Amino acid sequence: MGEVKLFWTWTSPYAQRIVWALKLKGIEYETMFEDLANKSRLLLEYNPVHKKVPVLLHDGAPICESLVILEYVDDKWNTTARLLPDDPLARATTRFWAKFCDDQVLASVFKAFVTQGVEQEKATAYTIEKLDIVEKQLTGDKFFSGETIGFLDLVFGWIAVYLEVVEETSGIKILDKERFPLISAWKERFSHVPVIEETLPDRETLISKYQRMRSYFLSKASAKK
Amino acid sequence: MGEVKLFWTWTSPYAQRIVWALKLKGIEYETMFEDLANKSRLLLEYNPVHKKVPVLLHDGAPICESLVILEYVDDKWNTTARLLPDDPLARATTRFWAKFCDDQVLASVFKAFVTQGVEQEKATAYTIEKLDIVEKQLTGDKFFSGETIGFLDLVFGWIAVYLEVVEETSGIKILDKERFPLISAWKERFSHVPVIEETLPDRETLISKYQRMRSYFLSKASAKK
Repeated sequence: MGEVKLFWTWTSPYAQRIVWALKLKGIEYETMFEDLANKSRLLLEYNPVHKKVPVLLHDGAPICESLVILEYVDDKWNTTARLLPDDPLARATTRFWAKFCDDQVLASVFKAFVTQGVEQEKATAYTIEKLDIVEKQLTGDKFFSGETIGFLDLVFGWIAVYLEVVEETSGIKILDKERFPLISAWKERFSHVPVIEETLPDRETLISKYQRMRSYFLSKASAKK
Repeated sequence: MGEVKLFWTWTSPYAQRIVWALKLKGIEYETMFEDLANKSRLLLEYNPVHKKVPVLLHDGAPICESLVILEYVDDKWNTTARLLPDDPLARATTRFWAKFCDDQVLASVFKAFVTQGVEQEKATAYTIEKLDIVEKQLTGDKFFSGETIGFLDLVFGWIAVYLEVVEETSGIKILDKERFPLISAWKERFSHVPVIEETLPDRETLISKYQRMRSYFLSKASAKK
């Protein structure tokens, strides 16, 4: 299996995906917690381009970008808990929605988190529109691609805990149960999968961290004006 | 092989990647030219989320997003002209740089193309900084990953023709030969691979199309102000 280290932090919805993937596959790894306000020399060395978590270090080789890491984990340890489907078309559909999640949904949730006023309202409305599209993709199956947890469940998994934390700390509402019945039901099922439940970050701790993060981003933005 | 159709247009650096991939693999396909000012009903039906080219239609199933299509083409027709390497780590590195190309380099080239003044200067400087990072990745090998053309060559292939067209139509300079000797040498080699050379769009036609596109974007932006 080799030596596996994961550089990450509780506040990153991107990093959490990798924790879930490694746990699902039963891969032992060493945790390297990062303080994003004071990044380690190693993080900067292993991800010099983006200087971000998560970074997976496997036998000394760094892999960066959460979707790339998920593919790597699935390519490398492909005998247990397959994340991507085998069929090329199903793989393509999975990759399409993973990219949609990051480029459209997560990016605009982040925007709503770091803004206020009209700008925040716009980002919130945009996120809701994009989630409408996701809602239409769900069929009421247990998970995104059927009966077992897979790639897209991990990619959208941040909805299970981070979205509520963003809503609470920035005074917005995105995941309305009546508007999003299928996403809400999926969220419940996903949160109760044992591996996920055991590794979900503590809500209260996240809230206090996100409160500090939001204040920091807002003060940075107002200093710019 | 099934029925393969490609919805695309000459002006799209994303779509051109797929033409190259299909040609390299010797896959016959039907060309469905799109006029982006007047998109076809079929394009909107097959890519309702983004309404963009390229779309690959294989036996009636649409695949969207150029990097996703490239992976699909390589997954599906994996016996000739392999685009991705076999090794999981090399695959991860390839995916990392493909994402970097689209998110960092192409996005900022586009920004420089649709802006002017200080905004354009900033986008140009940003692009150059990002290309500095790409330059450092190249080793002087024939192609991005060695002796044969592969995934990253197709991803960065827009540099071979579209970048010059953007530079000329928007009055900026990005690919300076002295600053980017390795990228410039790669560009020459890449442009002369027979399959690439035969399918490169005509420079003069592109220039007149890009001139009209730039005027359109600039007038839209000034109407907004």
